Amino acid sequence: MSEQALQYLSDHRDRLLNKLNDFLAIPSVSTDSVHNNDIKEAATFLQTYLQDIGFENVQQLETDKHPLVYAEYNGAGPEAPTVLFYGHYDVQPVDPIELWQSDPFKPEIRDGRLYARGSSDDKGQVFMHLAVFEAIMKTEGKLPLNVKVCIEGEEEIGSENLYDMLHEKKELFDADFAVISDSGMVAKNQPTILYGLKGFTGIEITVNGPDHDLHSGMYGGAVKNPVMALTQILASMKNTDEVVTVDGFYDGVEPLTDEERKLIKEVPGEDYKEATGITETASEKGYTPKEHTMARPTFEINGIYGGYQGEGTKTIIPSSATAKITCRLVPGQDPEKIQGLLEDHVNKVAPTGVTVEVKKEKLSAKAYKVEPDHPLIQKAAESYTKAFEKETVFVRMGGSIPVVEWIEDIYNIPIVLLGFGTPDDRLHSPNESFPLDSYDKGMETLVYYWDSINK
Amino acid sequence: MSEQALQYLSDHRDRLLNKLNDFLAIPSVSTDSVHNNDIKEAATFLQTYLQDIGFENVQQLETDKHPLVYAEYNGAGPEAPTVLFYGHYDVQPVDPIELWQSDPFKPEIRDGRLYARGSSDDKGQVFMHLAVFEAIMKTEGKLPLNVKVCIEGEEEIGSENLYDMLHEKKELFDADFAVISDSGMVAKNQPTILYGLKGFTGIEITVNGPDHDLHSGMYGGAVKNPVMALTQILASMKNTDEVVTVDGFYDGVEPLTDEERKLIKEVPGEDYKEATGITETASEKGYTPKEHTMARPTFEINGIYGGYQGEGTKTIIPSSATAKITCRLVPGQDPEKIQGLLEDHVNKVAPTGVTVEVKKEKLSAKAYKVEPDHPLIQKAAESYTKAFEKETVFVRMGGSIPVVEWIEDIYNIPIVLLGFGTPDDRLHSPNESFPLDSYDKGMETLVYYWDSINK
Repeated sequence: MSEQALQYLSDHRDRLLNKLNDFLAIPSVSTDSVHNNDIKEAATFLQTYLQDIGFENVQQLETDKHPLVYAEYNGAGPEAPTVLFYGHYDVQPVDPIELWQSDPFKPEIRDGRLYARGSSDDKGQVFMHLAVFEAIMKTEGKLPLNVKVCIEGEEEIGSENLYDMLHEKKELFDADFAVISDSGMVAKNQPTILYGLKGFTGIEITVNGPDHDLHSGMYGGAVKNPVMALTQILASMKNTDEVVTVDGFYDGVEPLTDEERKLIKEVPGEDYKEATGITETASEKGYTPKEHTMARPTFEINGIYGGYQGEGTKTIIPSSATAKITCRLVPGQDPEKIQGLLEDHVNKVAPTGVTVEVKKEKLSAKAYKVEPDHPLIQKAAESYTKAFEKETVFVRMGGSIPVVEWIEDIYNIPIVLLGFGTPDDRLHSPNESFPLDSYDKGMETLVYYWDSINK
Repeated sequence: MSEQALQYLSDHRDRLLNKLNDFLAIPSVSTDSVHNNDIKEAATFLQTYLQDIGFENVQQLETDKHPLVYAEYNGAGPEAPTVLFYGHYDVQPVDPIELWQSDPFKPEIRDGRLYARGSSDDKGQVFMHLAVFEAIMKTEGKLPLNVKVCIEGEEEIGSENLYDMLHEKKELFDADFAVISDSGMVAKNQPTILYGLKGFTGIEITVNGPDHDLHSGMYGGAVKNPVMALTQILASMKNTDEVVTVDGFYDGVEPLTDEERKLIKEVPGEDYKEATGITETASEKGYTPKEHTMARPTFEINGIYGGYQGEGTKTIIPSSATAKITCRLVPGQDPEKIQGLLEDHVNKVAPTGVTVEVKKEKLSAKAYKVEPDHPLIQKAAESYTKAFEKETVFVRMGGSIPVVEWIEDIYNIPIVLLGFGTPDDRLHSPNESFPLDSYDKGMETLVYYWDSINK
């Protein structure tokens, strides 16, 4: 089937790219209710597309917030395996808008890249799957396996309703395996299979001091400064060797084997300095940056604020200060236990004269890991290699995809993480883009993969 | 002369209070150009009043912004000393207006207090001086000393033009000593002489990491987090004993003598917990909160920001983080030297992987201190005690009044800080007021003081 489907994708390339651009032009930002109609429009775009291809039971499952697009294809018959395809159609906000070189919702091709919010994360990759389904259906009349489609609209805001739905409507999403394309390759055109993802948890620390901002001349010397208290708490949680100094944080973490260190070393690494503009990398003592990002837990302050932020000087003792912290976890770490350890630490080191409040992130997830030699993983790797003409590498990733942990937890099925993004895509940042190489060869990979499943 | 002048003030109390109300009714807010005509009107009010009393060379010295009202009285003859009287006729904005119980520019007396913007800071206190000059002139035909009057219209916006004028027109403001009534008593009806003010300096620290916000899953473990770096820097600058741990910060600071500790202890103190809502005070190890606020240098983070500040979670490594710091200094500390020490410390402890930028505050000031037993201070204390029938206390204050440092720096003359405000005056806040007790007894104090100067 592959030849015909690939020819179809080639013949219809312009039309399909225009259709993708129509999809990307819908500003489906999930975090801001001003975009609720756009969210609805994006969901309807997908619903229509799936119906047009020939999917059944296509519907928008309503939630408290944004609808989930669901569809089924059962035409491969009861003997054929069923895949659950997951993706999301919502996107991150675009601020700061002034840093975009072109309108985030007017897709534009520059230097072989398609620039638009969502081009890589995840509308572009979702669209590739649908286009491949279309190509196979139009050329073969049917798909080689049964499919359940689950494309949500709340990934960028925590997937809370998906979490509930996966638990409550088990029969709807049940399948033999799952495929997700919401990740990337370790380098452009380097076939990459993710066999491990980090877990995720977080806390927010607020330090409260005086009940209003105080004049620093009248009260400086009598009142504990909440910002200073917060910095003292935070600085006690990680040392300059990048080691987390919270008691018990590393308990249960599997030691990194020589074998795995070798695997990690073989992964073509990104040039961190070039990609981020930093002068020096910084990683946990005893581990390379690649080892730390892929296989060791992390602790990051995502944001901090308190007191005066305007021009010039305001001589106050601020009334409060807040820091947002998230951790990426590895197998062996339990998110809730980690939250407890962080909270205990904060309470232990909090100085007198202030009160400290710890808010725990609700949607935590454990880390995920699958054996790289699983047949479904191996077939994906072969398809990938065939399309990109390069050996596939197997990597663990520093990121977390909570839905992966949920699917594993509920359905206990293998999950194939087939991502086509690249390190330069600037996800969540201004000037998000996606290479057209990835677009074309990624679809080729999918064609080969679906073709291989029943063989 | 005192008896007659006091009788005059008593006989004319209603008329003078009405005249003060006319002055307070002019919304001379310096920060907003919409009030430029009001500023002009307030300056003209003062000019007319000074001319009516019999001052010479009365003029509005034009500046880039708001005029400075200048006047001289030379009638005491060349043998008599000359005092420079400084005050300001501009006021703070009134926002939030809805919190005022009466119109900020329709003065109203409630419970023995005169409510109006500027009633305490500083139009009320400026008016008291002019009314006393009037009373003495009308009853004695002359003043017992020569006077130079300098009432500016830019105190609430930084006094930049005054700074230039004091430097450029030295002969205009030259005097034997200065008197300023722009401060307060430690408690209502508690005669208070300020004999020390803190100096002031500041820096802003910005830590720059990656050139854009990064995905914490992709780069956590490879890239130093700028917020974490900033907290590590800040936490290294002051310990939990509230001791500044920057090398050389305390160099040259005079030790607090037992005598001065006794003086500070005797000052009726504010209940810090009640006034600010804190659970525990926090002050430098070895010093009481009152000692620290009044006589020891302070180091405060006035504001901090970096990364995500919105609702929920955003899993980024922020590209930068900034903290604003100001220090209140005591005699023996040089603002520029302190800025240099802070900068050196920051550069020394800054972790690798980030770059650090230190911006120095331009308008710094040295601390000011006069010996409490200086005859001009003692005479002020005696006058104060006589009027209020209570022993005067001598205090150092944690705040800074830049004009005091400038006058000392340029003219090297004693400065008498005779303030009649009270802690409940709500300066810069809604419902500013001034007790009529302070108004009447303050003027009585001034009558005694001028009477005492030549004796």
